[in-house]
Amino acid sequence: MANANGMHMTVTDPFWSSRIETVRTQMIPYQWEALNDRLPDAEPSHCVHNYKVASGQEAGRFEGCVFQDSDLAKWIEAASYTLISHPDPTLQKTLADLIELIASAQQPDGYLDTYYIINGLDKRFTNLRDHHELYCAGHLIEAAVAHHEATGSRMLLDVARRLADCMERNFGAEPGKMRGYPGHEVLEMALVRLYNVTEEERYLHLARYFVEERGQAPLYFEEEEKKTGNHCHWSDGPLGLQYYQAGKPIREQTDAEGHAVRAVYYYSGVADVARLTGDESLLAACDRMWESITRRRMYITGGIGSSDYGEAFTYDYDLPNDTAYAETCAAIGLVFFARRMLAIRKRGEYADVIERALYNGILSGMSLDGQSFFYVNPLEVVPEACEKDQLRRHVQPERQKWFGCACCPPNLARLLASLDRYAYSTEENNVFVHLYLGGSLEAFPGGERVVLELSSGYPWNGEIRLRITERESSAPFTLALRIPGWCRNYTVSAGGEACPEKAQDGYLYLTRAWKAGDEICLSLSMPVERIKAHPAVRADIGKIALMRGPIVYCLEEADNGADLHHIRLGDSPLFQTRWDERTLGGITVITCEGKRLAKAGWEDGALYRPQAEEDYHTVPLRFIPYYAWANRGPGEMAVWIRQ
Amino acid sequence: MANANGMHMTVTDPFWSSRIETVRTQMIPYQWEALNDRLPDAEPSHCVHNYKVASGQEAGRFEGCVFQDSDLAKWIEAASYTLISHPDPTLQKTLADLIELIASAQQPDGYLDTYYIINGLDKRFTNLRDHHELYCAGHLIEAAVAHHEATGSRMLLDVARRLADCMERNFGAEPGKMRGYPGHEVLEMALVRLYNVTEEERYLHLARYFVEERGQAPLYFEEEEKKTGNHCHWSDGPLGLQYYQAGKPIREQTDAEGHAVRAVYYYSGVADVARLTGDESLLAACDRMWESITRRRMYITGGIGSSDYGEAFTYDYDLPNDTAYAETCAAIGLVFFARRMLAIRKRGEYADVIERALYNGILSGMSLDGQSFFYVNPLEVVPEACEKDQLRRHVQPERQKWFGCACCPPNLARLLASLDRYAYSTEENNVFVHLYLGGSLEAFPGGERVVLELSSGYPWNGEIRLRITERESSAPFTLALRIPGWCRNYTVSAGGEACPEKAQDGYLYLTRAWKAGDEICLSLSMPVERIKAHPAVRADIGKIALMRGPIVYCLEEADNGADLHHIRLGDSPLFQTRWDERTLGGITVITCEGKRLAKAGWEDGALYRPQAEEDYHTVPLRFIPYYAWANRGPGEMAVWIRQ
Repeated sequence: MANANGMHMTVTDPFWSSRIETVRTQMIPYQWEALNDRLPDAEPSHCVHNYKVASGQEAGRFEGCVFQDSDLAKWIEAASYTLISHPDPTLQKTLADLIELIASAQQPDGYLDTYYIINGLDKRFTNLRDHHELYCAGHLIEAAVAHHEATGSRMLLDVARRLADCMERNFGAEPGKMRGYPGHEVLEMALVRLYNVTEEERYLHLARYFVEERGQAPLYFEEEEKKTGNHCHWSDGPLGLQYYQAGKPIREQTDAEGHAVRAVYYYSGVADVARLTGDESLLAACDRMWESITRRRMYITGGIGSSDYGEAFTYDYDLPNDTAYAETCAAIGLVFFARRMLAIRKRGEYADVIERALYNGILSGMSLDGQSFFYVNPLEVVPEACEKDQLRRHVQPERQKWFGCACCPPNLARLLASLDRYAYSTEENNVFVHLYLGGSLEAFPGGERVVLELSSGYPWNGEIRLRITERESSAPFTLALRIPGWCRNYTVSAGGEACPEKAQDGYLYLTRAWKAGDEICLSLSMPVERIKAHPAVRADIGKIALMRGPIVYCLEEADNGADLHHIRLGDSPLFQTRWDERTLGGITVITCEGKRLAKAGWEDGALYRPQAEEDYHTVPLRFIPYYAWANRGPGEMAVWIRQ
Repeated sequence: MANANGMHMTVTDPFWSSRIETVRTQMIPYQWEALNDRLPDAEPSHCVHNYKVASGQEAGRFEGCVFQDSDLAKWIEAASYTLISHPDPTLQKTLADLIELIASAQQPDGYLDTYYIINGLDKRFTNLRDHHELYCAGHLIEAAVAHHEATGSRMLLDVARRLADCMERNFGAEPGKMRGYPGHEVLEMALVRLYNVTEEERYLHLARYFVEERGQAPLYFEEEEKKTGNHCHWSDGPLGLQYYQAGKPIREQTDAEGHAVRAVYYYSGVADVARLTGDESLLAACDRMWESITRRRMYITGGIGSSDYGEAFTYDYDLPNDTAYAETCAAIGLVFFARRMLAIRKRGEYADVIERALYNGILSGMSLDGQSFFYVNPLEVVPEACEKDQLRRHVQPERQKWFGCACCPPNLARLLASLDRYAYSTEENNVFVHLYLGGSLEAFPGGERVVLELSSGYPWNGEIRLRITERESSAPFTLALRIPGWCRNYTVSAGGEACPEKAQDGYLYLTRAWKAGDEICLSLSMPVERIKAHPAVRADIGKIALMRGPIVYCLEEADNGADLHHIRLGDSPLFQTRWDERTLGGITVITCEGKRLAKAGWEDGALYRPQAEEDYHTVPLRFIPYYAWANRGPGEMAVWIRQ
């Protein structure tokens, strides 16, 4: 089957393929065991159990978090993506049986949420703010669309349509409907996906309603609280209903606020609706949120949501490294938002952010072996502080096997299993290459088939080769190659001849009557870059981070000893890069000379003393990619290094 | 009346007198109104109300915190001190009436705690861990001793003795007694004070029991929890029973741990008992705690307890400036501990810490007008962060009028009202001058009367003049003058001739047959010093603080503009000092040239970019004493400045 872009891809990328294979061969089977409570050393998930109880197949109670159903849906989505390139009858059967179970729990009116089916349907839709029914519905719909695209089966899609119809009958601006909206967003973008597949206008209409109704006066969540008396935890702090992005309408919001995952999921839905309706004021809102995030509230790793409190955005340029939250799921959600902005306008900055998050703040979320995960992705870690400082109790120096609230690992799985969708897109006569993901791609620019093969040393070098392997039509079409924002020099040639085209908004448009055998060579210069943060970022003042191409680097204690704060980079170190096959799954290591503070002079135990000459001696420094940190036992890590 | 040292002092110090007068003429009357719930714009205290209910004079319930009684006791103590130098029949009558009220609430067996008298005596002593009965008893005893010393009256002292006797009948290692101890320490040192006045061995015996029993297995607070089922909040986090310094015996404790106020109150009691019993292992424990605090866990301001969580010590060298807790009461408690160490051994380092805390992290706790107070004393403030960052929600950019939990203002009052006790002491033939507090002092070295007059420009200059104004005896005695640890050069002369003596352990011992008219001139060199923190203090790496004499300086936005993090001090600035009568109540200002980062080059809104040449331009910097910050409206402040 083809992916949602009407394209088909076989990924054979030296960097990503093994990771995608880890998802397929390890994470998905492992998570299936987890979802069935069969892992001896992990908290039970209860997901499948809850569906069995809801469908009457088992006795028992609802167990786990109110949003437990969504874990199963994310797993279905990820598993479905893997079937596209790796048909697997056993997995397909597992999915079919599971979907049968899910369908058997669905109520006659289409309603489907095991928490309320088990605990009493009379209470459904009474706590939209905190009880995640609409969130779970959104993930089920996303899973259904993915399963349909992967297998052609309508089984789960029909369940999803009945569920969406149920939502549509209950929610909306029309008389007699509730004027509510999801406490945790995702249903908005899910309904747009369902609309894309079914072409059923009602789903787009409902998505638009959810996007626009949110935050309108009288505030639904306040009205709901008056009825239920359920106190809103967040109203005691600075976030208030903006924790849910529900304190004012999106057209009046000026900054990315509140719970970061919810926020970027919401903005993704807003962007979808803006694109499909052509609504300029919604698009303007998306632009404001995009700028707020990427210009004032995003870590260099693509991580977002700098505070543990509310897992939330805070305020402009507040990007602490050691107390960072930067949830893996939030960076994934930023990729969702960026891809939708890219669907509206072809600007390199959107793909730049996808790349930044993907290679850094998202990939750091999983260990090299794919067996353990970070929820929180700090940019500076001192293990003693994680253990003893309550302000950093959310920061772990080592990845964990599984989580009680297990949102990140299945989210990682569904992203990596569908990575080709972020790398390429076709629009009219253009084939866009957003990310240099290696493999073989079948696309239909202008309706005519072409097969391309892309290979590169990405992200370790910028040598990219694109070859047309099959093309019958002689019609010209355009290859639009992204020139990354980090790249200051590049050359491009086709058939050995330099191309005269210049990049526009980050894309190089090469229009030719491409034919089989044609070869395009793109060479992106990829020196080590010393990066500064905006001077308003207090946490990074006087500090430097190293990047090479899309990869953010860090120092680890394993290579550089403890007390990383004693290290200074010096004014103009000479960087050396070396490919190291055997370290951390194969990485390009950066080395240079740095300076380290000698401890001499403090032996008398004084805590404060008049300044004396400080002794910094020359030491070799060894930087590794940020995503690969914490794969060699606990130790200090730092991205931002003193100058 | 004389103070506890058998000395009498009239303070006429250009720096402290006005502050002590503020305590006497403003804070004490204001707090009396507060304790009687007569302040229209403050939360009621309920203190006097509770005593009226407990004594049956009024109907009503117990109101306020379980430790509410202690606020009243601290006020009595402070008010009593002021009577020593300022007899005031009205205040004396107010105190006498109040003491009569207190006495009328005392139970036949001596028990006195309004919370349990009102709520049911059958429940008394069932929650020592959290219900502060023994803490309140301690403060009442301290108040009683102070009132007795100030007025000669035994009214409150008799109440205190009956209360101490009640404690002694209920607690101890003897058969039939409870083996408990205070949840919040203070009773230990209070009992020693009571012993000093009454010479009743039982009180010292009970103090020693409390000091030594704490943390012995089986842990009393665990046993108590088994009976009551009251869950210990702190056992869920890293502090456990060490929050109360009650997880292991003091002789096994290696570091200052837990709630900082409790800790230093406890160590004060330990030091008292160690001194009076000559117990070497207790003294060794005091030495360990002292070193733990002053060498690894103390801010440059003398602030201690770096974490809001548990208002507690954390771990070595963890001294964050922007999330600091550094409670005013904890620095006051450190002064209590230091004075007791000084009573054991004459070492300048103890008085150095008293001075450091007093002029910096304690004095910062009150506004210049004595009307508003800080609980928390951070070393770096950005007002926007205090408002929006949950990690800094305990940090206020402006002092508050009064507190629901009002421990700090009355603690400040009782410290400042008894400051002479910290400045001077007499031991055998020695008159020790620990602090250069100006005024007239009557002392009895070797039993013979002498009156001294000390005047100085302290803390703004180091010129100190000590004059013998009255001396009848011709017996020699020793003036022991402290040479502060911050002082690198000094000269001393008597009668115009240089003294040949050298300082020993921070004191200069001048033994002469001093006679009336003799004059000693001590000149302490007081240049501006650039201070570094130990390189293990991550928060201060690459930064400098300025001190001049005992005063820690800071930059404020009011003088230097916002974005203090853009400022660098440069390598060797020339400092200028200037006495400014009209600023902040009269201060010595430090000015120099510094460097400020130009914001140019970031106009495109980028959050990260490759390093370009940074432009630092020269700017004038103006430093003010840290204690005087936040007296000109909210704004940024920083003690530690980038080099």
